[in-house]
Amino acid sequence: MKRLLLLTSVAVLGAGVARADDATLRDSAKDFFSAIPAPAAPANEVETARVELGSMLFFDPRMSSSGLLSCNTCHQVGMGGVDGLETSIGHGWQKGPRNAPTVLNATFNIAQFWDGRAPDLAAQAKGPVQASVEMNNTPDQVVMTINSMQAYKDKFAAAFPDEADPVSFDNFANAIAAFEAKLVTPGAPFDRWLEGDDAALNDQQKQGLELFMNEGCSACHNGVNFGGQDYFPFGVVEKPGGEVLPEGDLGRFAVTETAGDDYVFRAAPLRNVALTAPYFHSGKVWSLPEAVHIMGAAQLGANLEAGDVDAIVAFLQSLTGEQPQVGMPVLPARAAGTPRPEGF
Amino acid sequence: MKRLLLLTSVAVLGAGVARADDATLRDSAKDFFSAIPAPAAPANEVETARVELGSMLFFDPRMSSSGLLSCNTCHQVGMGGVDGLETSIGHGWQKGPRNAPTVLNATFNIAQFWDGRAPDLAAQAKGPVQASVEMNNTPDQVVMTINSMQAYKDKFAAAFPDEADPVSFDNFANAIAAFEAKLVTPGAPFDRWLEGDDAALNDQQKQGLELFMNEGCSACHNGVNFGGQDYFPFGVVEKPGGEVLPEGDLGRFAVTETAGDDYVFRAAPLRNVALTAPYFHSGKVWSLPEAVHIMGAAQLGANLEAGDVDAIVAFLQSLTGEQPQVGMPVLPARAAGTPRPEGF
Repeated sequence: MKRLLLLTSVAVLGAGVARADDATLRDSAKDFFSAIPAPAAPANEVETARVELGSMLFFDPRMSSSGLLSCNTCHQVGMGGVDGLETSIGHGWQKGPRNAPTVLNATFNIAQFWDGRAPDLAAQAKGPVQASVEMNNTPDQVVMTINSMQAYKDKFAAAFPDEADPVSFDNFANAIAAFEAKLVTPGAPFDRWLEGDDAALNDQQKQGLELFMNEGCSACHNGVNFGGQDYFPFGVVEKPGGEVLPEGDLGRFAVTETAGDDYVFRAAPLRNVALTAPYFHSGKVWSLPEAVHIMGAAQLGANLEAGDVDAIVAFLQSLTGEQPQVGMPVLPARAAGTPRPEGF
Repeated sequence: MKRLLLLTSVAVLGAGVARADDATLRDSAKDFFSAIPAPAAPANEVETARVELGSMLFFDPRMSSSGLLSCNTCHQVGMGGVDGLETSIGHGWQKGPRNAPTVLNATFNIAQFWDGRAPDLAAQAKGPVQASVEMNNTPDQVVMTINSMQAYKDKFAAAFPDEADPVSFDNFANAIAAFEAKLVTPGAPFDRWLEGDDAALNDQQKQGLELFMNEGCSACHNGVNFGGQDYFPFGVVEKPGGEVLPEGDLGRFAVTETAGDDYVFRAAPLRNVALTAPYFHSGKVWSLPEAVHIMGAAQLGANLEAGDVDAIVAFLQSLTGEQPQVGMPVLPARAAGTPRPEGF
């Protein structure tokens, strides 16, 4: 469906040499993209408690077995929701296999992780806390840690009031997911333009948007999150080198074990992409222009000229929204029964 | 001077078996302690900019060579200003030599670090960022990192408006110090009691306060910060075992190289001590009652009874103040010239 729309747009927009006017461009853009809605205020006290609890758990390094690593270590809310590392560093200074995807606007993705192996934020939250290369903890120890601190127990009771046993690993994940669902970035220049403010994008950015649609980028990077909605092979036309696309990482094939899913990944969501270097699941590319050039060649068979790359990059910069204002939560004091840090 | 006051207090308070009334106890307490003043609002735009800049630098992991560790990694503002580890873990998962002192109320200390080797917060801030076992960076690379991001350069210019070259390692430290000076915790139950609210402490806490003064704890742990004002040998009466007081760490002797300064440390400030386990420079003691018992034996030659320890601990819990409300700053995006993370 999207591909069909793309071809239509290309035909229409490609007809003239001059750039389409704002109204025409906006009509085409609305076929592909939508603005991020302003985050809804919590609906009631229970949701408020759940979001607050999730914030505490997200920032609490005691959820890792070492006591050193929190969700925020790899998904820094003040740094575009990423850690800015090639691939993340976890327990024991081990280097993880993939670049940390941003937590910002992750709520809009069809599934989580580069290979989509977690269907939602709550399922995702259970992964890194247990991964030996990340937070290296166990569900039992997480629950024991939470139960050791009365302030946490009270907060779980408030956040999950209808449950007989509110402190559970499931609810640990549910609370983190509730917090993460609030980490959205509305108000990007592109969104303001899409909603009618012609001046929110400059001419180069509008040219970049036109190229983004005409060249075919928007075939995969579309929707509210400019990606994150479907899976595609990395290297549709031409596989990038093994540095960028390591041979040993087959992507979604490890999830589906289905022929044709090798080197398939979820289309990276491009919201705030100017903040989330380095790029690709391998994290090997530090420059956004270089990433755009690689994608043109690998996915579209296009050898994009420097001016076109610059315009697309200028457009991508217009996807940087208002960053979430998050307070550092005050965490409960450890108690006698709190498991001690280990792994040094 | 404090010692003299102590002896006077002991004589007066020791005369009766019953606990002193609030007014008498308060008079004695005021000889030793004072309440934390409410933090002053920034005096002007320059100070506001300096504190904001300091907050950004404090939370920015790119100030470490790995890109993974920030000031907040070891001095978590939401966790009593400490990391809750025995001794801190730094670059390459190395284990540091001493327990991380709290950053909260550190502005009130006469000098920084367990051995007082830094005269003030700015001097302290220059230490961990360079220590190979901590953030493992160099002043040149810190300055290069800052200069690579225009938003940081602008903020330094606003924070140090009268300087020809505002981005410097000195000003990096000055800004962090300005932020840290705001990390104070007024409003503790003890402070409210000291200012006249009899009901702010319960009877056990008042008994604990009396013991704290009568037994002699307040000879070293006094002032606004309940410590942090002077240096004392650990083990005045009896050295604790090598587990708690490792033989190889001579404390202040390494700073002064003066006979008699071996095993001398700055009296630990006890504000928020209920939040800052584990205890001592070795971080070997996880229980506050155990720490109190050890101090009684080591420093005062007192074998404190369990009831007395409990009362002192109850009193120490009244030193937990209102924790600072700190927002996670939004950090500038890395740029082409930003040094890449290294050390994996």
